[in-house]
Amino acid sequence: MQTPWEYRYAHRTQKMGSSVIRELLKLTEQPDIISFAGGLPAPDVFPLKEFKEACNVVLETVGAQALQYSTTEGHRPLREMIARHTARYSVEVSPDNILITSGSQQALDFIGRLFINRGDYVVVESPTYLGALQAWNAYGAQYISVRTDENGMVVDELEAALRVGPKFIYVLPNFQNPSGVTLSLERRKKLIELADKYGVPIIEDDPYGQLRYEGEHLPSVVCLDSQFRGRNGGTYSGNVIYLSTFSKLLAPGLRLAWVIAPEQVIRKLVMTKQAADLHTSSFNQYVAHEVAKNGFLDEHVKVIRSTYKERRDVMLEMMDEMFPAEVTWTRPHGGMFLWGMMPEGIDAAEVLKVAIDRKVAFVPGASFHATGGGANTMRINFSYSAPDIIREGVTRLATTLKEAIHKNGHKP
Amino acid sequence: MQTPWEYRYAHRTQKMGSSVIRELLKLTEQPDIISFAGGLPAPDVFPLKEFKEACNVVLETVGAQALQYSTTEGHRPLREMIARHTARYSVEVSPDNILITSGSQQALDFIGRLFINRGDYVVVESPTYLGALQAWNAYGAQYISVRTDENGMVVDELEAALRVGPKFIYVLPNFQNPSGVTLSLERRKKLIELADKYGVPIIEDDPYGQLRYEGEHLPSVVCLDSQFRGRNGGTYSGNVIYLSTFSKLLAPGLRLAWVIAPEQVIRKLVMTKQAADLHTSSFNQYVAHEVAKNGFLDEHVKVIRSTYKERRDVMLEMMDEMFPAEVTWTRPHGGMFLWGMMPEGIDAAEVLKVAIDRKVAFVPGASFHATGGGANTMRINFSYSAPDIIREGVTRLATTLKEAIHKNGHKP
Repeated sequence: MQTPWEYRYAHRTQKMGSSVIRELLKLTEQPDIISFAGGLPAPDVFPLKEFKEACNVVLETVGAQALQYSTTEGHRPLREMIARHTARYSVEVSPDNILITSGSQQALDFIGRLFINRGDYVVVESPTYLGALQAWNAYGAQYISVRTDENGMVVDELEAALRVGPKFIYVLPNFQNPSGVTLSLERRKKLIELADKYGVPIIEDDPYGQLRYEGEHLPSVVCLDSQFRGRNGGTYSGNVIYLSTFSKLLAPGLRLAWVIAPEQVIRKLVMTKQAADLHTSSFNQYVAHEVAKNGFLDEHVKVIRSTYKERRDVMLEMMDEMFPAEVTWTRPHGGMFLWGMMPEGIDAAEVLKVAIDRKVAFVPGASFHATGGGANTMRINFSYSAPDIIREGVTRLATTLKEAIHKNGHKP
Repeated sequence: MQTPWEYRYAHRTQKMGSSVIRELLKLTEQPDIISFAGGLPAPDVFPLKEFKEACNVVLETVGAQALQYSTTEGHRPLREMIARHTARYSVEVSPDNILITSGSQQALDFIGRLFINRGDYVVVESPTYLGALQAWNAYGAQYISVRTDENGMVVDELEAALRVGPKFIYVLPNFQNPSGVTLSLERRKKLIELADKYGVPIIEDDPYGQLRYEGEHLPSVVCLDSQFRGRNGGTYSGNVIYLSTFSKLLAPGLRLAWVIAPEQVIRKLVMTKQAADLHTSSFNQYVAHEVAKNGFLDEHVKVIRSTYKERRDVMLEMMDEMFPAEVTWTRPHGGMFLWGMMPEGIDAAEVLKVAIDRKVAFVPGASFHATGGGANTMRINFSYSAPDIIREGVTRLATTLKEAIHKNGHKP
């Protein structure tokens, strides 16, 4: 059907491409496929009983407010709770440093709107979170990729990137999506020193920080930066904008996340959000607050950790046993993903096609690379599938990988 | 606190101004103020019991899906329900013509992203919906205002606007926010003919279409356009993008609205939404579908109509009785707002300051005018306050207006 709209798209819309992950998710939605492709939390850990109770309490006691229009900043008791949580684990912030967003994806989009002029450089890890690239591509960002290894961003290679004059540095320090690696304490400190030396601020994206299955909790970048600047014993310094979310701790279907930023940035973000969607669902904010308010999350996160740790362990054991020697992978201390590397010359997208025939799926790693490369890499999720399914899926995947390597080795 | 972020805002952020309505709402949030300023539905009509039942059913039967990540397009059963509803009241559409958005504000924002290049012209009514101007200002829209009277947009003055070559025409045909007026059937037809003559498509924003308190339902612009184009007896023609919402029929706190557009536009909107917030809360979509699915809305809308009709009648009666002769106002056949006009030379923003001292509030009309004017106008909401409160509020407002006119008359 020809309509008058096709010739009227704005220039920024012309080269819009659909998300690789989203399109893949469609392919892998067939129920007989074992999907390690998505970034889904395990539905087994959703606290359904607590949600039901919370919905009932909210609708019985504050139903009219919870269903009404609300302030753009977000439900104040929820922001106060997040401020207390942040003070306990990281730095002292005020509720006025916090904006509730409709998922962290919205926070990434708003950061793009606020800060990125067409052609601006952003420093990202390689690989980095695809959703951030999608959000910032829309604003014409260019990227400088910094290599990562098993200790996260290789900060020795950061200085050259900073000398280009980027708008900000984007980093996922804990159990990174997609690689699963964690930025070491030493590198966190070096990152902060270098950022300070060149006056470049940092976006810290931390959806999985609480989901650690081994090793010790590392202080967040925002926390270390505030200590570095020596402001009143750990009060928020403002140099780091920090993102986190309820998607992994409660449920992604609520679309509830938060940004911590200087007050003047929050005010700009609030204006952005007014024009973008007025406010995040007040009902969901009331319900999340009701579920979480009496320390429930502290208990609940233990359940999530124990569930996901088992799944990670099962996956790593099976991979150790079954995967061909030519393939290597990361051993994440937390989070939801690990990262596989095949020999150079093998195209993960081609391997995926065969894998889907064998009823198993992952995400080819190329799209997580902002400036090219990574065709031989793959992101593998371990949080969603139950242990038995993981065993079967890794078995199928191992067969697929062996074939691919065999085929590759026999090429002229 | 000085942070490195202040010098890093993108150019589009520099002149971002906070919403007049939002800032005012803060002022008028003091509990002793009678506010006719907001655009709030009456909390009395929120179906709390039905919501509670629906939350329980959803969490008991499909809890894991409702709390999980979901598709960007929106919950398919909800889109199917909207398609059936649209076929019944307007034109035949497929669920693939429908995108669920986080409130209509998000639809307006996405339309700005998709279609507006800096400097593009958009034809709007004068006055028009402030939220659309806020959304599109961010993309550098320019406006051509077409005058409205008691029958909506004065379409005889539209042709000159269309010859400028605008991207689209934006129209709120039913009980317009802010003016409360309705576009007559004759003018709807003329609008469609003129749009066709110049090949300019239309955005129809219809949040209140079901909330009619007198007179006969008029066919929507999208319906008339499809008839005009003679496509298979009322199948969607694609020339009109149609917006509506659950905010006025169920509850705004859910942030649930929808866009009807050609499939290729929906695909672009889906990509936009992927980068903007992945998807609208799946939980809220399941709950809304559960509440609405067995024809509940048809019954519920009767309750809303009868409640709001009484409030409108009380307000009009009181204004007839109390308001000074120099002030005129519209007599809406539905919706939530009416529009007051004071004599030229009286500044509604100044009058509001005095009104707030007298503990009553409205929205000065100037900001609803895309290209200036309207300083003497005001938007008055009749849906939110109970009848007795309306009586008292109109009394306070009448005193304020009499004073303002008296003062104005005595100016040299």
